[in-house]
Amino acid sequence: MSQLETAMGMIIAVFDNYARTDGNRQTLSKAELKSLLEKEFPNFLASGKDKDAIDRVFKNLDENGDSQVDFKEFVLFVAALTCCCHKYFEQNAAK
Amino acid sequence: MSQLETAMGMIIAVFDNYARTDGNRQTLSKAELKSLLEKEFPNFLASGKDKDAIDRVFKNLDENGDSQVDFKEFVLFVAALTCCCHKYFEQNAAK
Repeated sequence: MSQLETAMGMIIAVFDNYARTDGNRQTLSKAELKSLLEKEFPNFLASGKDKDAIDRVFKNLDENGDSQVDFKEFVLFVAALTCCCHKYFEQNAAK
Repeated sequence: MSQLETAMGMIIAVFDNYARTDGNRQTLSKAELKSLLEKEFPNFLASGKDKDAIDRVFKNLDENGDSQVDFKEFVLFVAALTCCCHKYFEQNAAK
């Protein structure tokens, strides 16, 4: 597998790994998303001071309002985060 | 780094690796995109019968019509492809 195919496979594996915790394997519940964010982005919610952060992220991700985050919603979130990281690296490289 | 952070880093690395070939390091020209697709998705354009495939992919990706594919356009393409792969695996698993 190429580097890009491997990266895509890893994103699918992460989603499936957390989505299978409760009954519905096709979507992330709020508890599953919280667990995913805590383990995959340990610095993202690290401060612990903002108790509403996970609620806000979940509400933003759950585009169709069904209280579940499906794969499409998740992959767009990862794409947006990757875009932010790329911009950050680009700005730092330009300094 | 977590699995998801690693995957995001790999997507950035692949883009940067091909984008730096010609003068503009921030974007992929059509030649750079062609090279990326041929090496990262060897089966994607493998048949070689459809000479216009690369033109169509490029036109679809170049949302703002500036004849360059920027990182945001690229990462949305990767997200869409990952979504298709996930759907394919899901359907196969259900069989």
